[in-house]
Amino acid sequence: MRGTGDLGLIVERAAGSLQRVETSTNSILSRIEGLGDLSHASLVYSRDARFAYVFGRDGGLSKVDLLESTLVKRVVQSGNSIGGAISQDGKLIAVGNYEPGGVRVFDAETLELVADLPATPVNGKPSKVVGLVDAPGNRFVFSLWDANEIWVADMSDPKAPQLTKFTDIGRQPYDALITPDGRYYIAGLFGEDGLALLDLWQLDKGVRRILPGYGKGEQPLPVYKMPHLEGWAMADDKVFLPAIGRHEVLVVDMRSWEEVGRIPVHAQPVFVMARPDGRQVWVNFAFPNNEKVQVIDSLSLQLIHTMEPGKGVLHMEFEPRGEEVWLSVRDLDKVQIYATEDFRLLKELPVDKPSGIFFTDRAHKIGL
Amino acid sequence: MRGTGDLGLIVERAAGSLQRVETSTNSILSRIEGLGDLSHASLVYSRDARFAYVFGRDGGLSKVDLLESTLVKRVVQSGNSIGGAISQDGKLIAVGNYEPGGVRVFDAETLELVADLPATPVNGKPSKVVGLVDAPGNRFVFSLWDANEIWVADMSDPKAPQLTKFTDIGRQPYDALITPDGRYYIAGLFGEDGLALLDLWQLDKGVRRILPGYGKGEQPLPVYKMPHLEGWAMADDKVFLPAIGRHEVLVVDMRSWEEVGRIPVHAQPVFVMARPDGRQVWVNFAFPNNEKVQVIDSLSLQLIHTMEPGKGVLHMEFEPRGEEVWLSVRDLDKVQIYATEDFRLLKELPVDKPSGIFFTDRAHKIGL
Repeated sequence: MRGTGDLGLIVERAAGSLQRVETSTNSILSRIEGLGDLSHASLVYSRDARFAYVFGRDGGLSKVDLLESTLVKRVVQSGNSIGGAISQDGKLIAVGNYEPGGVRVFDAETLELVADLPATPVNGKPSKVVGLVDAPGNRFVFSLWDANEIWVADMSDPKAPQLTKFTDIGRQPYDALITPDGRYYIAGLFGEDGLALLDLWQLDKGVRRILPGYGKGEQPLPVYKMPHLEGWAMADDKVFLPAIGRHEVLVVDMRSWEEVGRIPVHAQPVFVMARPDGRQVWVNFAFPNNEKVQVIDSLSLQLIHTMEPGKGVLHMEFEPRGEEVWLSVRDLDKVQIYATEDFRLLKELPVDKPSGIFFTDRAHKIGL
Repeated sequence: MRGTGDLGLIVERAAGSLQRVETSTNSILSRIEGLGDLSHASLVYSRDARFAYVFGRDGGLSKVDLLESTLVKRVVQSGNSIGGAISQDGKLIAVGNYEPGGVRVFDAETLELVADLPATPVNGKPSKVVGLVDAPGNRFVFSLWDANEIWVADMSDPKAPQLTKFTDIGRQPYDALITPDGRYYIAGLFGEDGLALLDLWQLDKGVRRILPGYGKGEQPLPVYKMPHLEGWAMADDKVFLPAIGRHEVLVVDMRSWEEVGRIPVHAQPVFVMARPDGRQVWVNFAFPNNEKVQVIDSLSLQLIHTMEPGKGVLHMEFEPRGEEVWLSVRDLDKVQIYATEDFRLLKELPVDKPSGIFFTDRAHKIGL
């Protein structure tokens, strides 16, 4: 018997397993195995912070019990998937799929299929789905890579989803984010410059283009180098985001959605994440420069620290109130824990090829 | 064995007990008794969301186990107290006291005294302490009613607190809030107009006065009618706050800290609280008009709903992702649960003279 507020899971991408961890003592509790291909896995938590739903690259959807440390159930729901979301009321799990393209919605209790939302076909095949998130009003929002669309699915009646579709939103949306308040959904575009912004409070205003210079003049990059939009940081009325293909972090005004600065950094940024209080912004980098992490002061916009955890820093997760941060260092088979105030290394934990780190406070956050 | 992410406690102010509740099923699980005088009680949660620390009016500090449903320990640490806070790392509990005035800090595990911070004496008596909150950097921040001061206590070394004191901040600070990012500490002033603002990111800038018209020209009111500053709502780049002694909600720009509007409401507002996504702002009212609740749309700034739950609506608490809200209706001995989307009454729970409602997602929030 124990509280579940200080638990977390770390993805072991090669082994297809999870390390169950605890943030109060910075320790590993147990390993959970048999989750299939976790090479690009993410997960969400149930509203009681007891269960996790893990989205594997192989289309696997797994339900894990953090108290019993068991794999409760696993279904292979598609041939290739790319993340998912849990509904506001905690009753539905949605998965975004590449193959076949579309979204499938499952009962959070049983993992039984509740709704199937095939995406708009392009050249006879349903479009790949990316950037699937939850939003207030029991909605899911996602983008269609091939079809250049954004869909809002109102799941208030799970058996009869109400779809609102936005077309011609820009070429090849490749990932998306939702702001922490659940208001703005922003998709990155692979096929052209700028980003597509949808105000979920005002759907009638449609999708508009912002940051027209974002990616301008850049050569298209391989998708595996694209920054993760989920990692955008919002702090002190500004958004910090990875410049695609440049060694820069962009600073954007949250009211006007206009660029107000650029901060030179070590290499191409991947995740740009704000400490929960917004005072620091932490940045990791793309291969082959993924051995370092840099920290920006969100007030002065200056780089205040550079550290070198080791090759393959893939992910970062802050403890809920921000006093410590956990880093996955894949090539060292270690997760490192640092104090954010003075950047002291507090502890190293042995983890097999660690990637995503997820703490249970996500259970209570819109869009996570 | 169960997750603790969907639990909560409701204060039964007259009986000195707590109702332990669950938000997934909207139900009461059990009652915990023997907590003394809870007539103005509040509480905070441990970082694992298993334990609650309850601050009673009689100086009692109680530790409650949400899994065992037991009162683990209770100490009477002063003659009269007014709320408390838990440190960022979860190891310290601070209590703000009226009698004798000052702050006492306790070990979260054992409730043993760790540090005693007597307040500046006025006329030979230590000043009453109000508006005690936690802040990033393992700090506590609080105001001194009699001494007109704000103190920042850095508890990084619990045995040797580092105090930074701001004097002459304005007459009689009576309550305070900290913004959700932990940056701004704002104290309401009983003895003069305006509010005292401290930027915790820039202590060297000192305390400055904002909203000089706040309270202007009003007769001083009895303290029991003062609005709760903890209830301030921040939504869509604006702060919504209760106008003292007026039937209005003030709208303040978050960048300039200047008033940008006033919204007429039913009576004197007490709590003005934003739904977690910021789209709605819910308002309850002071005696003798405390039978109603009104809802403001934060985008249009229009009143969109008025409901009449019954006499003595004392507190409101949103479920973590905002889909439902719980209301304490003291004179009906009921807690009512509403859907926030369409204001439907979903359920009523029998609770003896309910006041504060606290869900465990507070465990992960700065300042709560």
